[in-house]
Amino acid sequence: MKKIIFSVGFLLFTSIVFSQKVDHVKQIEAIYNFSLTKGKAYDWLDHLSNQIGGRLSGSLNAERAVSWGKQELKDLGLDRVYLENIMVPKWVRGTFEYASIITGPGRSTNVPICSLGGSISTPTSGLRAQVVEVKNFEELELLGKENINGKFIFYNRAMPAGLINTFEAYSKTVNQRSQGAEKAARLGAVGVIVRSMNLRLDDYPHTGNMSYGNLPNKMRIPAAAISTNGAQLLSSMLSLNNDLFFYLKQDCRNFPDVPSNNVIGEIKGIEFPNEIIVVGGHLDSWDLGDGAHDDGAGIVQSMEVLRILKKTNYKPKRTIRVVLYMNEENGLRGGTKYAKNSKNRKENHIFALESDAGGFTPRGFVFEATKKQFEKIKSWKSYLEPYMIDRLELGGSGADIGPLRNGKTVLSGLRPDSQRYFDYHHAANDTFDAINKRELELGAAAMTSLIYLVDQFGF
Amino acid sequence: MKKIIFSVGFLLFTSIVFSQKVDHVKQIEAIYNFSLTKGKAYDWLDHLSNQIGGRLSGSLNAERAVSWGKQELKDLGLDRVYLENIMVPKWVRGTFEYASIITGPGRSTNVPICSLGGSISTPTSGLRAQVVEVKNFEELELLGKENINGKFIFYNRAMPAGLINTFEAYSKTVNQRSQGAEKAARLGAVGVIVRSMNLRLDDYPHTGNMSYGNLPNKMRIPAAAISTNGAQLLSSMLSLNNDLFFYLKQDCRNFPDVPSNNVIGEIKGIEFPNEIIVVGGHLDSWDLGDGAHDDGAGIVQSMEVLRILKKTNYKPKRTIRVVLYMNEENGLRGGTKYAKNSKNRKENHIFALESDAGGFTPRGFVFEATKKQFEKIKSWKSYLEPYMIDRLELGGSGADIGPLRNGKTVLSGLRPDSQRYFDYHHAANDTFDAINKRELELGAAAMTSLIYLVDQFGF
Repeated sequence: MKKIIFSVGFLLFTSIVFSQKVDHVKQIEAIYNFSLTKGKAYDWLDHLSNQIGGRLSGSLNAERAVSWGKQELKDLGLDRVYLENIMVPKWVRGTFEYASIITGPGRSTNVPICSLGGSISTPTSGLRAQVVEVKNFEELELLGKENINGKFIFYNRAMPAGLINTFEAYSKTVNQRSQGAEKAARLGAVGVIVRSMNLRLDDYPHTGNMSYGNLPNKMRIPAAAISTNGAQLLSSMLSLNNDLFFYLKQDCRNFPDVPSNNVIGEIKGIEFPNEIIVVGGHLDSWDLGDGAHDDGAGIVQSMEVLRILKKTNYKPKRTIRVVLYMNEENGLRGGTKYAKNSKNRKENHIFALESDAGGFTPRGFVFEATKKQFEKIKSWKSYLEPYMIDRLELGGSGADIGPLRNGKTVLSGLRPDSQRYFDYHHAANDTFDAINKRELELGAAAMTSLIYLVDQFGF
Repeated sequence: MKKIIFSVGFLLFTSIVFSQKVDHVKQIEAIYNFSLTKGKAYDWLDHLSNQIGGRLSGSLNAERAVSWGKQELKDLGLDRVYLENIMVPKWVRGTFEYASIITGPGRSTNVPICSLGGSISTPTSGLRAQVVEVKNFEELELLGKENINGKFIFYNRAMPAGLINTFEAYSKTVNQRSQGAEKAARLGAVGVIVRSMNLRLDDYPHTGNMSYGNLPNKMRIPAAAISTNGAQLLSSMLSLNNDLFFYLKQDCRNFPDVPSNNVIGEIKGIEFPNEIIVVGGHLDSWDLGDGAHDDGAGIVQSMEVLRILKKTNYKPKRTIRVVLYMNEENGLRGGTKYAKNSKNRKENHIFALESDAGGFTPRGFVFEATKKQFEKIKSWKSYLEPYMIDRLELGGSGADIGPLRNGKTVLSGLRPDSQRYFDYHHAANDTFDAINKRELELGAAAMTSLIYLVDQFGF
C-alpha cells in the first residue's frame, strides 16, 4: 500500500513537472516560429539603416532615430513609452580626410584612412612627417622622445588571428586606437596612424573612439585609422625606405555637448510589476556605414522582444522594458544616465540583457551573475539547446548595461557567432546588406526566449 | 606509510593523465593556430572557384579539377597520390533557358528559371500551357488526370522557415524537385515548374538533380526551377487569373556516360597502417555558380586536413587518406565506386568524415556510430569545447561516404552553421565571394582536430 501511494505521488509529481516543462517548451517554440515567420526586425533594420543611416551621437540622424524609435514603440501599443533626456558629445568628421605615402618628389601613393572619433583635425594644409612603426606601447617607450619627436607613430599590431573569439582578439589590440595618440603625443609625435581592428586584409579603414586622457589641448595630435591593406603597404614600404614621409589631412572637430535621448518602452508586469527586466542595444552608431550590425541589429532585436511577447498575447509577470540607449560609441552617456535615474527612482532591476555583438547566428549568452544565479540560469539549458543557443558562460555582458552592475541584478549579453563581426565593425561596409534576415531573427527569438524564462522563474 | 604510498601513486596517475591531456590540448591548439594563420584552404578555393569554376560531372571543368586536385596533393608530398577511374553521367544545360508568364496577347512577364539537372529539353519552339499550382503530391493526386492533362504543374511548397536546422527544412521540400516531374507526367502534365529550395525571397533559381524514375522516354516532361520571387509572382498572378499561360524554353540534354575520376591521397600510418581514416568532399558541383560552398569548401578543407598534419610534422599512427569524390550531385558514382573498390581490396576503414554542408562557422559533427563508439567520441568533448565545435549528434553523415556504411566504420559529417547555406545552394550566387576566410579555416581546423583525435584513440 505504501508502495502504491508512493507511486501515485511520484506520478503526480512528474506529471506536474512534465506539464510545466511542456508549456515552456511550447512557448519558446511559438516565440521562434513567430520571429522566423512574422518577424519585423529585418524590416525595421531596413528602415533604420537605409532610411535613417549612420547616426553618430549629436547628429541629425541620431535625433531622427530617436523619433523613429519612439513612434515604433508607441505603435506596438506598449503600456508606456517615453524619452530620457541626456547630454551627448558631438564630434563631426568634417568634409575631407585623406592620406598618402610619399617616397620622393612627385612619388606618392594614396592610402585609405579615416579620422578616429574624438580626434582633432590636422592643420589646414595637412601634416607631413616621417613615420615610426611600433607594435605596442612597450616598443614606443623604448624608442623614447629622441626617436619619436616630430614624427608620426604608426601602430601596426594586427588582431591575433589564432583566437577563436574575435572579441578577445579585439581587446588585445584596441588600446593602440583608444590610447595611442595620448601616449605618442607625450613623446613628441605629431600624429598617429593606427592599423584598423579588422581580421581581414581589405581597403576599409575602421573608425572608433579615442581619448586624449588629461593631455593639455595644445599637446593633442591628430589620429587616424588606416585600412589593413594600407597598413601592410605602409609597413612594407617602411622596411624598404625608413625615411619616407606620410601625409595626413583631416578636418574633424569636437563641439560642445548637445541634448539627446534614450528611448524607453515597457509592458507592465501583472504579478510583480516592480521587478524590472530590461532589454536593449544602442541607438547611436558610427558615421561611416549604416551601423546595421553595430548596433542597429541590437536595437531592432530588442524592440522585437517586446513585439513578439505582445503579438503572441503573452502577459508577463514582471515589467519588461526596452531601452534604446544613446551614445554607447563615444561616451556611454545613455547607459550611465539610465542607471542613475533608475537608482534615483529606487527601481528594482532583476535582469538586464544587451545585444551589441552583431546580427549573426546566436550561439548563447554571457552572464554577470552570482554562483547561485548562474546555477539557476544553467538549469534552463534544456530549453535553449534545441535552438543551439545553449552556450552559457560567465563574463562581461554589455557596455550600456554596465552601469546597472550592483552585485544583485543579473547582467547578460547575447553572444552571436563572432567570426564576421570585425569585417564590418565601425567601417563603411557595416550596412544593411551585410545582415542575413534569418540570423537576425534567430537572435531576436533567442533574446525573447531568455527574457521569457527570466520572467517565468525570476531570480 | 600506506597513505603516503597511495598519495604518491595518485600523484603519479594524475600527472600522467594530465600530461597526456595537455599534449592533445596543445596539438589541437597548434592545428587551429596553423589553420588560421598559415592556412591554404582559402587560396585553394580561390583557384578552384575562380580559375576552374563550376564543374559538373562530365564537363571539361570537372576534368580540370581532377588534374588540379591530383597535382596539389602531389605537391604536398603525401606518401601516395592516385586517381580512381569511374564512369559518370553527362548532362548539359545547353545554350538557353527562359520562361514567362503570359496573361494575354502581348502581355508577358519574364521570370527567372533554370533547368533541373537531368531534365529533357522543351520542343525547339518552347512549351506553352496553362498552370496548376500544388503544394505537394497529395494535392496532385487529388486533382487527378482530368485537371492536370496538358498543363504545367507548379510545385510551390516553400521551405518551412520555422525550423532551426535548414537542412531539415530542405528535406521536407526537396521531393517536389527530385520526383515532381515523374509524378506529374504520370497524370498527363506537359512540364513542371518547381519553387527553388531557398529560404530567402530573391531572383536566383536553384538547380539540383531530378529523376524520371522508370518513366518511359516518351512520357518524360521538362522540369525547371523558378526563383522564390518568381514563384511568389506566379502564385499571386494565378490567384487573379487561373487561365494564364506559362511559357518555358530550354535545351538541356543527357549524353552517354563519360569517364572521370576520384582523386585520392594518403599519409601512411606508422603504427596501424592498415587502419584507414578517410576525409573528403565532392569535387563536382552544379554548373550555375562556382560551387564554392557546394562543395569547393569541403574539398579544400579535406585537402587542408592532410596539409596541416604534414606541415605540423605530425606522424599519424593510422593511415590518413583524403578522397575528392566525383559526381555527388547527380549520380554518386564516385562514392559508390570508392566503397566498392575499397571492399574488394579488403581495406579496413575505421572512420570516414565528409564536409559537404558549406564553408560556414563549424558548430560540431554528426555521427553514424554504435552506442559504444559514440560514447568514446563524446569523451573527447572537452577538447572540442574551447573551439565551439562540441555539438556532437547522431544522424546522417554525408552522401559520398554513405556507401562505406557497414555497421563498424564510424561515419561523420562536419556540421557548420546552416542558416545561410540555402541562400547559395545550387544557384548562380554560390561563388567564392560568399565564402568567409576565417569560417572556412575554422572548418578545416575542426576537421583536422577530429581526425587527430580518431588517429590518437582509434575505435
